Amino acid sequence: MRIPILKLHNYLLISIQTELDDQTAINFQEDLLREIHTTEATGVVIDLTSVEVIDSFIAKVLGDVVSMSDLMGAKVVLTGIQPAVAMTLIELGIHLQNVPTALDLEQGLLKLHQEMGE
Amino acid sequence: MRIPILKLHNYLLISIQTELDDQTAINFQEDLLREIHTTEATGVVIDLTSVEVIDSFIAKVLGDVVSMSDLMGAKVVLTGIQPAVAMTLIELGIHLQNVPTALDLEQGLLKLHQEMGE
Repeated sequence: MRIPILKLHNYLLISIQTELDDQTAINFQEDLLREIHTTEATGVVIDLTSVEVIDSFIAKVLGDVVSMSDLMGAKVVLTGIQPAVAMTLIELGIHLQNVPTALDLEQGLLKLHQEMGE
Repeated sequence: MRIPILKLHNYLLISIQTELDDQTAINFQEDLLREIHTTEATGVVIDLTSVEVIDSFIAKVLGDVVSMSDLMGAKVVLTGIQPAVAMTLIELGIHLQNVPTALDLEQGLLKLHQEMGE
């Protein structure tokens, strides 16, 4: 299955509301990078509110997609990281440094505005 | 599977990017009404850009969900209706009268603002 990517002005909004299996995560990575390219988005908010658990593979894919988007010129904000997900990320040594985070989608958009100095 | 519903301020945003089967459509209807209730959303944008075909059942569910949301106090805007979908709707006699439509998500949000006189 594919994770829907919404375009709003020059931002892309993604709310992951399904357990991410490996293939879905890889598809998501490809889809997001393609969307950044075609829409010329400058910012991305990935909302993880509904993600209860992640494993090391998914964590790596997420970390990678942030770096990749950054390379392409789109700033990523992660929102709604659950306690268990935060614990997993740190335990796996994935610190997502320099990745802005926020509580929810709205706060994420605000943060994106701030990051861009808008 | 479930269709993700994003909450942005007092609006709900939904982008349907999968072929809707009957069960998915029914789940979506339930999920949306529940979300309107819990979030107290006043407006909903349903983006159908990626929906290429619909059948009579899905069309009815969509028409119903607009009326139901309306009853609950949330204004619905449909966006991105494709030519084939528009043809199917009219041929089935589903005119979606009084339902504002717009080209894409951004225009839909604008329309929602206008409808609410904001």
